[in-house]
Amino acid sequence: MRIVVDAMGGDHSPKAQVAGAMAAVQAFKDIEITLVGSESQIKKHLSKTERIDILHTDEVIDGDESPTKAIRRKKQSSMVLAVQEVKEGRAVAGISCGNTGAFMTAGLLHIGRIHGVERPALAPTLPTVDGTGFLLLDAGANMDAKASHLYQHAILGSTYMQLVRGVEKPRVGLVNIGTEKGKGNNLMKETYELLEHAPINFVGNVESRDLLDDVCDVAVCDGFSGNLVLKSIEGTASTLFSLLKKEFMASLWTKLAAAMMKTGLMHLREKMNYSHHGGATLVGLQAPLIKCHGSSDHISVYHSIRQARQMAQENVTHLMQQHLEE
Amino acid sequence: MRIVVDAMGGDHSPKAQVAGAMAAVQAFKDIEITLVGSESQIKKHLSKTERIDILHTDEVIDGDESPTKAIRRKKQSSMVLAVQEVKEGRAVAGISCGNTGAFMTAGLLHIGRIHGVERPALAPTLPTVDGTGFLLLDAGANMDAKASHLYQHAILGSTYMQLVRGVEKPRVGLVNIGTEKGKGNNLMKETYELLEHAPINFVGNVESRDLLDDVCDVAVCDGFSGNLVLKSIEGTASTLFSLLKKEFMASLWTKLAAAMMKTGLMHLREKMNYSHHGGATLVGLQAPLIKCHGSSDHISVYHSIRQARQMAQENVTHLMQQHLEE
Repeated sequence: MRIVVDAMGGDHSPKAQVAGAMAAVQAFKDIEITLVGSESQIKKHLSKTERIDILHTDEVIDGDESPTKAIRRKKQSSMVLAVQEVKEGRAVAGISCGNTGAFMTAGLLHIGRIHGVERPALAPTLPTVDGTGFLLLDAGANMDAKASHLYQHAILGSTYMQLVRGVEKPRVGLVNIGTEKGKGNNLMKETYELLEHAPINFVGNVESRDLLDDVCDVAVCDGFSGNLVLKSIEGTASTLFSLLKKEFMASLWTKLAAAMMKTGLMHLREKMNYSHHGGATLVGLQAPLIKCHGSSDHISVYHSIRQARQMAQENVTHLMQQHLEE
Repeated sequence: MRIVVDAMGGDHSPKAQVAGAMAAVQAFKDIEITLVGSESQIKKHLSKTERIDILHTDEVIDGDESPTKAIRRKKQSSMVLAVQEVKEGRAVAGISCGNTGAFMTAGLLHIGRIHGVERPALAPTLPTVDGTGFLLLDAGANMDAKASHLYQHAILGSTYMQLVRGVEKPRVGLVNIGTEKGKGNNLMKETYELLEHAPINFVGNVESRDLLDDVCDVAVCDGFSGNLVLKSIEGTASTLFSLLKKEFMASLWTKLAAAMMKTGLMHLREKMNYSHHGGATLVGLQAPLIKCHGSSDHISVYHSIRQARQMAQENVTHLMQQHLEE
């Protein structure tokens, strides 16, 4: 199977994408990769070309461009060309580290939604202390959600965790301000009623403070709230690590302590690092599109390719449609 | 001036409240305190009675009770009696570590809103890396907010930071999923338009990931989102500290490193500890009511009494009304 990678978006392009692709074809003998972007820039980093092709273009969508405008105007951009490779059947899945909104727009426009899905969701996997991680959806695709959207996201997310992560009966939680039924805003109250009767393992409301403690496998919320939660967790972790680093650098004495704690600190960072779960899936589209963090390195890209391969192998999008119809 | 303290709510009652009250009357010669709760339990911890009175009651509202029911049924509870001390003018401000929803309900029912305020907000101060802290409102009082509510909260929060924290032109930010204008859900788009023309120092949208980095003095959002953000920050910090502790306890060697880092770790904890900013103000009520965290110790209670005293001295609620009318 062939997987297409937009080589140009993100902070470390195309180096991260090229290195990630080379690692992936080494690891998985059944895949081929198309890298889309500036041929000359890609070639600088491409030391092994076996099962890797380049689709050249000079046009790039920037991170701060308006998604809809960018997708309509930049028809030759690496992102649009990558999505079209999937649309036209030349690749089974696509990956980008670029503009999230633009990638979703391109997916909606060129690939389309799974039959019956009202609104696709952005679904990253976040870390938990026990290392298993949980799927958060929607993390920012759909701002003004309805309960019916969240109902669908619960089913789609549950299917994803079953097929891609091998969780037998994924515990689906509704992200809310308290665990009791009846808590939250009108959207969450209404969604709770729907999820109680959904064909999933619904574990009720979960609080954002407990998410890292493995209270659920799938955390459902609207895109606005999900994005706030995602960025609050990321921001707090990043701030704490910076503060900790500063304290470790304060004196010769603390630097020595840091050296003694090196393994422990690496453990800690590894636990909070969720790149080995891959990128954020654009759940609800007819083919797997995976959005990597803009700051992704080659390891994140590698894991996203692995994830895309597994989604294609397990026929996830097809089974999502089946589960929705049931 | 007299400040009333509900001695019975919270995890460490009445010990934390009694010790906090004793410290406060020592520090501030112009205050008297009424402790409301079980006289026998309070007396166990009360070693100095100067300017401290006890208002006895055995009834207590639990943390998990339905707010409205609890307030209506438990008319002799320590919380209701405390709020009534304020209502009837025997105290200028009230403090509780108990059930947040019940405290807000009691405040609304017995003290009432500032003239013109549509919905009061819960406003805790959260830490920032530079130690100044920011006010988050609404952190959970009002679930389904309208733009007009958030507009008022922006003005109330700005007034609070000016008068209580001495910030000259508080930077008011709207908590959103991106910094550009036009981002977010309908509520945030509509609120942005209002805040652009509000008599405040509006600095635009702020992202939840940047809140700890001192991007604003007042962070405005609806109560549902605010509660998720608050608990995401708290939860992530708490999880990281536990993981860090575990790594420090892993071996004799790392325990030695921990000992060498003791001061640094204390710095770090102190930075993330926001109890010295006091409790969460119930902003928008006609008199200062301050909700301390359920896990508050005597230091948190002390700082909340200090905060209540300052709010009363600066006549904050009166000036909030004036600013709203302007």
